[in-house]
Amino acid sequence: MNASHPNPQGTLFVVAAPSGAGKSTLVNALLEHEPAISLSISHTTRPPRPGEAYGEHYYFVDREAFEQEVADGIFLEHAEVHGNLYGTSRKTVQDLMEQGRDVLLEIDWQGAQQIRAAMPDCVGVFILPPSRVELERRLRGRASDSAEVIERRLRNSREEIAHAHEFDYIIVNDRFEDALDDLQAIVRAVRLRAPLQRGRHEALIEELLAPGV
Amino acid sequence: MNASHPNPQGTLFVVAAPSGAGKSTLVNALLEHEPAISLSISHTTRPPRPGEAYGEHYYFVDREAFEQEVADGIFLEHAEVHGNLYGTSRKTVQDLMEQGRDVLLEIDWQGAQQIRAAMPDCVGVFILPPSRVELERRLRGRASDSAEVIERRLRNSREEIAHAHEFDYIIVNDRFEDALDDLQAIVRAVRLRAPLQRGRHEALIEELLAPGV
Repeated sequence: MNASHPNPQGTLFVVAAPSGAGKSTLVNALLEHEPAISLSISHTTRPPRPGEAYGEHYYFVDREAFEQEVADGIFLEHAEVHGNLYGTSRKTVQDLMEQGRDVLLEIDWQGAQQIRAAMPDCVGVFILPPSRVELERRLRGRASDSAEVIERRLRNSREEIAHAHEFDYIIVNDRFEDALDDLQAIVRAVRLRAPLQRGRHEALIEELLAPGV
Repeated sequence: MNASHPNPQGTLFVVAAPSGAGKSTLVNALLEHEPAISLSISHTTRPPRPGEAYGEHYYFVDREAFEQEVADGIFLEHAEVHGNLYGTSRKTVQDLMEQGRDVLLEIDWQGAQQIRAAMPDCVGVFILPPSRVELERRLRGRASDSAEVIERRLRNSREEIAHAHEFDYIIVNDRFEDALDDLQAIVRAVRLRAPLQRGRHEALIEELLAPGV
């Protein structure tokens, strides 16, 4: 069983959620369990939060540099969210996928729409909070954000949630462990899709189809 | 969170494999872990094997009765395999799905093609053995089958496997526990698809979209 393509092209996972749904915590736990997935690092003009590092959480750039990169066409998608610019480098994502790695993008609905148009085989996952009350509780518990930022995020959450149906899968993040199991099941199932499996097990299928009882 | 549709319409899973891939053992283990899935009982003209019961494993009927039922149009699909007729009652499947239950059909590639045409939202899973040698070993270990039956099944396995790519997912049944995890991940992921989740969590989504911070 020396499959000629042990690593067929990787899959791009696009994960979106309103602020406070628990997206980053879920994604970080997924990446711990699934080292074969790479997180795509976005470019942003948003200032780093305490503890955030360049090239690890984001490529932090100023607005002038970002706009030049947009003009140079390096972005697979870019969007303005909460007054800041965010973008994903096309080359970074494609290089990883061609090495057979799965890539995960944390993104908003606007970016997801652009990615879907550019890469229709991507797999979209939307994460919902279990209730409005819980969403507010989680946002207000984030001490680093100002009251003004929290209010803006609450208003923006409705716009984000209105696009949940554009994604392939929806997870309700009520019990964290269940939501993580959901996310892992989606990743596992996507890898079992027939076109990927045919590439991965090409030699086995040839052997099974060869003539002679 | 009194969702108005706690049970949206169930999903139809269609599972196929060459004889000896371990399909029935896998499906039985899945059903033990997932009581929300109902196995659809097929009609067949094949004689019962030792231990098989009417209405539990199959509805065993004679050829004349089967052909009358075909003429009456009661079958969602029917096919002749190894000289025996097999068929699935449309009403049985649809009643279960309308109650919100998932339904699983064990079927061959011909039946799967008919089901796909009649119910395009069904989810197809194909199970492969890990090697030709292992497939033969498993078939020869089934003491109730004659040498002639075994040889015919080996020849037919190639025809079955040639249709694996028509299914949505492919599982290689090498280690049983891994293959069962694969099957469970597919079922879990399918239930998280956006249209089903929107139905299930309609009240939550309305609450999250309602005006007012």
